[in-house]
Amino acid sequence: MKDWPLATRTGRSDPTVLHTIFKLTEQPHIISFAGGLPAPESFPVEPFVAAYDKVMRDDPRAALQYAPSEGYAPLRQWIAQSLPWNVSPEQVLVTTGAQQALDLVGKVFIDEGSRVAVQTPTYLGALQAFAAYGPTFYSVPHDPATGDLQIDLLEREQLRHNARFFYLMPSFQNPTGQTMPAQQREQLAKTCHALGLPLIEDNAYVELWFDQPPPPPVSSHYPDSCLYLGSLSKMLAPGLRLGFIVAPTTVYPHLLQAKQAADLNSSSINQRVVCEVLNTPGFLDTHLPRVRQFYKAQCQAMLAALQKYMPDNVTWNTPRGGMFLWVRLPEGLDSGALLPKAIENGVAYVPGASCYSAAPDVRTMRLSFATSTIEQIDTGIAALAQTIKAALVPPATQTSV
Amino acid sequence: MKDWPLATRTGRSDPTVLHTIFKLTEQPHIISFAGGLPAPESFPVEPFVAAYDKVMRDDPRAALQYAPSEGYAPLRQWIAQSLPWNVSPEQVLVTTGAQQALDLVGKVFIDEGSRVAVQTPTYLGALQAFAAYGPTFYSVPHDPATGDLQIDLLEREQLRHNARFFYLMPSFQNPTGQTMPAQQREQLAKTCHALGLPLIEDNAYVELWFDQPPPPPVSSHYPDSCLYLGSLSKMLAPGLRLGFIVAPTTVYPHLLQAKQAADLNSSSINQRVVCEVLNTPGFLDTHLPRVRQFYKAQCQAMLAALQKYMPDNVTWNTPRGGMFLWVRLPEGLDSGALLPKAIENGVAYVPGASCYSAAPDVRTMRLSFATSTIEQIDTGIAALAQTIKAALVPPATQTSV
Repeated sequence: MKDWPLATRTGRSDPTVLHTIFKLTEQPHIISFAGGLPAPESFPVEPFVAAYDKVMRDDPRAALQYAPSEGYAPLRQWIAQSLPWNVSPEQVLVTTGAQQALDLVGKVFIDEGSRVAVQTPTYLGALQAFAAYGPTFYSVPHDPATGDLQIDLLEREQLRHNARFFYLMPSFQNPTGQTMPAQQREQLAKTCHALGLPLIEDNAYVELWFDQPPPPPVSSHYPDSCLYLGSLSKMLAPGLRLGFIVAPTTVYPHLLQAKQAADLNSSSINQRVVCEVLNTPGFLDTHLPRVRQFYKAQCQAMLAALQKYMPDNVTWNTPRGGMFLWVRLPEGLDSGALLPKAIENGVAYVPGASCYSAAPDVRTMRLSFATSTIEQIDTGIAALAQTIKAALVPPATQTSV
Repeated sequence: MKDWPLATRTGRSDPTVLHTIFKLTEQPHIISFAGGLPAPESFPVEPFVAAYDKVMRDDPRAALQYAPSEGYAPLRQWIAQSLPWNVSPEQVLVTTGAQQALDLVGKVFIDEGSRVAVQTPTYLGALQAFAAYGPTFYSVPHDPATGDLQIDLLEREQLRHNARFFYLMPSFQNPTGQTMPAQQREQLAKTCHALGLPLIEDNAYVELWFDQPPPPPVSSHYPDSCLYLGSLSKMLAPGLRLGFIVAPTTVYPHLLQAKQAADLNSSSINQRVVCEVLNTPGFLDTHLPRVRQFYKAQCQAMLAALQKYMPDNVTWNTPRGGMFLWVRLPEGLDSGALLPKAIENGVAYVPGASCYSAAPDVRTMRLSFATSTIEQIDTGIAALAQTIKAALVPPATQTSV
């Protein structure tokens, strides 16, 4: 059959674009700052070995059976207790990674043509998850001078557009690495509450702070107006595919129903294993500082290399946690157009344009400092700086001799 | 916030209905034939213990990392080779259970208002997955006399309705336990091909045959017009949440993109573990016959109990595999209305009505013979027969003495 009758949504984006970029950047001789993977060095291997063994010895048939769609009760309990505001385990829905949480949010809130408000730039995976349900996005930018989210603009635009929700990653954001200050969080919570605008707070990177934890979640101020999304992929390991949603009890049944239709439940054995690891006395107290120290050193190496190699008019931020930093090229350069040259020179990144729902700043790029060695970071940033410098030099005019 | 702005789809069904039924049926003193769980006795525990240990020793950091969205390459290879027609590993997409495969099919093929054709009755989880995308269903019934799918009716209705696809579970169907004969499969494949009607073939129960394997999949006749959905939950264990889609290369990229947006990828460690178990020399040759023998004995016990206890005008089928059989009550009875009485008498089932997209036969019920003991089957069927008999007796007329 040649012409499969596809849903309209499949025509909205070219499924091969990102795939092509990633195939390019995955060549073995390339130093890739393009990936979104956490560092495998950060995975607590021995605790997982022990936990899989224990879970499979203790109650293997329950671990291999279906689990409740809501999630494994002791894990829901652990998650509820770990959060810095009053959360009941009944509000916790375990998801197949935080990515599934985004898909369920899309399914429960977005009708074809609904408005959705997003921070700009924003997490590409959220744009993809939401886009499947046919919304129109509007973007809330950050003040170029202060870096603050333009909450006043959100307020004005929301009165005009009546979005179904505002999606935001407040801590060590993917892609920018940026973190929202405490006072802004409180102000945003108030504004969303006053507007009756649900806030979808995606705090996937919250545990990866370098020197001090980020301020309390926006959700902690007005939990009844918020869905809070979390991930176990960054603090533990992504191979188990576990994340969660904390939802007010009025919305929870709809998310649960969407979850049942999506994959019935998340892996029972993995939920039990994660719960075992998290409840091991003293585990997090030694594991998390190690992970934070690791990413901090990686980030510092990249900042040092940028300082050392980049021409004057390239700018970047100084993240206080997470896996990414955000670079802006001098006027006239386009990070997408530059990528093939960079790859020729042995280095790759994600062009920032893919992280905008509209009006991309083509001068931006996302660099991950998570998975390269310190030497690769130095070599890769040098190659990137070289590529940028070459692009800045106007092509030599042909002169006759 | 009181009024969350929900998507229209959330209003289409009451999220608590099935939840309430299952809560009722899960009381400890109830013998439940309502569940859809495989028998935990059938899980190959020792091979899984060994495989988790091996995978975590061999390459723990890869097992704990993200996997390709397409799935773990050696598992895709195993799946492709296991199928009885020419399938390339590039056509295999690993999913988070077969339930996710249904959700991805809905996402890629259904627009709001699209027609979708389903067998009737059909798998409730498929109706739920598809319903999220807003289709209108049309039903293709089975001939009450022969049990054959009415392919001629599909042909006529499709010319009128132009459905996006026809969804079918041909082997040991959930809910009826029924299997489509070889000749019907070929005829259906031809018809769908001629109509340009994609066939979604869900073969989740294919390995659970009692005496002989079901005929080759419908997809094997015209693979270019079919998506083939499979599950590892029934032949191995559902706690790993692994299933798959086999798709023609033209459709594959759209399913892959939907998969990325849904949960990025399925659990790496579970994919590696399953692959390890499946590739253990001799494993399937001893495991599968044991599982088949187990379910066959369970089914025989239920058939014997039905024979022993049921009043004459109750009918049921004789499945040749799977986990379910389908019972039809005498005229005038409604299995949904009868359920509270049955639960009072200590036995539960799924009222058949929930498995119809329209015009339910309220006299039907689904019984699972998978998870009760032989004694429980006898006791439970006796209690069910008692409940039915009591309902058949017209209430005693009040006579004055």
